[in-house]
Amino acid sequence: MAVERIYLDWNATAPLLGAAREAMLDALAMPGNPSSVHAEGRAARAVIEKARRDVAGLVGAEPAHVTFTASATEAANHVLSPFYRMGKSRVAVGRLFVSAIEHPAIRAGGRFPADHVSEIPVMRSGVIDLEALAASLAVHDPADGLPLVAVMLVNNETGIVQPIQDAAAIVKKFGGLLVVDAVQAAGRIPLSISELGADFLILSAHKLGGPKGVGALVSRGETLMPEPLVRGGGQEKGHRAGTENLAAIAGFGAAAREMTADLVERNVMITALRDRAETGLRAAAPDAVIYGDGSKRVGNTSFFHLPGLKAETGQIAFDLEGVALSAGAACSSGKVGASHVLTAMGEDAATGALRLSIGPSTTEAEIDRFVLTFAKIAARRKLAGKAA
Amino acid sequence: MAVERIYLDWNATAPLLGAAREAMLDALAMPGNPSSVHAEGRAARAVIEKARRDVAGLVGAEPAHVTFTASATEAANHVLSPFYRMGKSRVAVGRLFVSAIEHPAIRAGGRFPADHVSEIPVMRSGVIDLEALAASLAVHDPADGLPLVAVMLVNNETGIVQPIQDAAAIVKKFGGLLVVDAVQAAGRIPLSISELGADFLILSAHKLGGPKGVGALVSRGETLMPEPLVRGGGQEKGHRAGTENLAAIAGFGAAAREMTADLVERNVMITALRDRAETGLRAAAPDAVIYGDGSKRVGNTSFFHLPGLKAETGQIAFDLEGVALSAGAACSSGKVGASHVLTAMGEDAATGALRLSIGPSTTEAEIDRFVLTFAKIAARRKLAGKAA
Repeated sequence: MAVERIYLDWNATAPLLGAAREAMLDALAMPGNPSSVHAEGRAARAVIEKARRDVAGLVGAEPAHVTFTASATEAANHVLSPFYRMGKSRVAVGRLFVSAIEHPAIRAGGRFPADHVSEIPVMRSGVIDLEALAASLAVHDPADGLPLVAVMLVNNETGIVQPIQDAAAIVKKFGGLLVVDAVQAAGRIPLSISELGADFLILSAHKLGGPKGVGALVSRGETLMPEPLVRGGGQEKGHRAGTENLAAIAGFGAAAREMTADLVERNVMITALRDRAETGLRAAAPDAVIYGDGSKRVGNTSFFHLPGLKAETGQIAFDLEGVALSAGAACSSGKVGASHVLTAMGEDAATGALRLSIGPSTTEAEIDRFVLTFAKIAARRKLAGKAA
Repeated sequence: MAVERIYLDWNATAPLLGAAREAMLDALAMPGNPSSVHAEGRAARAVIEKARRDVAGLVGAEPAHVTFTASATEAANHVLSPFYRMGKSRVAVGRLFVSAIEHPAIRAGGRFPADHVSEIPVMRSGVIDLEALAASLAVHDPADGLPLVAVMLVNNETGIVQPIQDAAAIVKKFGGLLVVDAVQAAGRIPLSISELGADFLILSAHKLGGPKGVGALVSRGETLMPEPLVRGGGQEKGHRAGTENLAAIAGFGAAAREMTADLVERNVMITALRDRAETGLRAAAPDAVIYGDGSKRVGNTSFFHLPGLKAETGQIAFDLEGVALSAGAACSSGKVGASHVLTAMGEDAATGALRLSIGPSTTEAEIDRFVLTFAKIAARRKLAGKAA
């Protein structure tokens, strides 16, 4: 008998929202290239500009300041660049500072050589060490070029929310630029690029119910912009060449619109479900550790460790029981490595941790089945311990 | 009364094939991230690897040598790079040579600085000047790094087929690498990367009935590969980071499979329709010029000039009559500029030309309506000429 699957890995990728699917179907039926001047082209163009307004609305930005990319990773490679332009003048960016818990797409440093990237530590709480950030920026020589700082708003593994406004104040004090990876925040907490004080936000559609294959770089202004990563066409106001991904952009717009509406109410419900899961797992295994539970967290994520259970083993055990969850980030190699986030927090990362991440269509019944499955696996672990 | 539209701009973008749409719908219903190790992730991974085999089949390549990108433009920026690797060793590429009729995505030169890009002229026939290519490569100093040559297989404006095998022989003689933009050739003429002698092929899904938002870089081997353009994740065997565009890749695979089957027979029919259009337009305006009609052309494209009619005006006139065609390439700024292809061929490009490009679902009735519309516009032009 096939086990009914429960998908609890929304931080890896979220199921497509119905509204996004509908918008994509409509776009897929349109024959035109958005750059063509005939009626078919203009109709396709209109779809993109509507989506641009909807994505801008998600983060309180101007539509003109949204550049669509193929992924958040592409947006990171675009914005993490030593080469910026102010109008026709080239502006040098001298060094990149990234927090130790950034996503691998940021930690890779974009277009910076490895020796031009510095890491900013986080505290045991999983929150960026702002004093260390200030100290690093203080010793950076502005004559070497502007400092560029990347701090994520919500960590993808722990769900911990970072103090972006405080980081922004420090970055501004030192005349730097702040890039905020908002991939795991968008649609989960209210977002305003100007209130955050970020110069750039990075977004991904597929983490909030849009399709895979589209992201965005959102800027606060348009005075100082990174040089294009992908050249050879005037699309996206010259910031990103190539025929636009019409259907995916339409889906992104629809998902952004839906996730902007009722954001707070929806996330109260999601948080209640997550808390129900954590209450259940604490009851089943009082020795379980929930990372970041003393810090401000987004409501859909729980990152936990069960002593005696390797994360990789745990993930497979859940998978066999029909429950999809993750051992840290979805690792692109298909292997499960030690979590750099736990290491940065000073935790023993060797045995790893499991991540439950949920979304708007997650049900109480699914959470209860997760808890039952967890209890079963935890019990097995104890038995194995006794037998050994 | 609304005029029924006829879409004759397939070289700008082709309507989505039914098979591609079905494959995308199936993929959009899958919740997993292809990098996740749980069942949902593995199912998504399988979709990508199936599509990889289908795209490889389109060009006679090994599936392992297909790297999916977001567009042909991204593939061009990836492969047109001064930085290559052979295993862990860095290999320098010193200069890029591009034919004068390449697509803007290639002409922009990828990651090469402008002063490291040389242009190879074409002859009046619209065919690359192979003697000039050899002469340029002869004066390139290999000590400055390998020469990299980019020649398109089928020109997007004229449909003229380039002598790639001959170009490949010259490039090999000088120890260079050959990149072939096969965007307008794939699905229209039989393709084999090894028979062509190309080191890399660039493909785009949306020109052959797949969706917009996905392309591929196909390599003949994997010994010498360009450094990644988009870093920060191990996807695509480390060649291109970022969560894969699952649905678009699935659609690309389905379109590639469909266009590989019955390719020759289908294109006999398409060529007959294109020839019917050209016979009709010559009859309606004997002074019309069809560019490249003395050269080997792909069967779906006709690039023509009507004396006394500016291309921009002509395109609008056709659009108002319900016929979508293009004035040269779909220009990303929405403006119609002089054709660099015509200029390279030594033609007067000021008044421009119109491009009809068709595909598998184009009908005889559509072609006949195109001819009638052309005759109407040509007649108006004559009247305007007399009145002036």
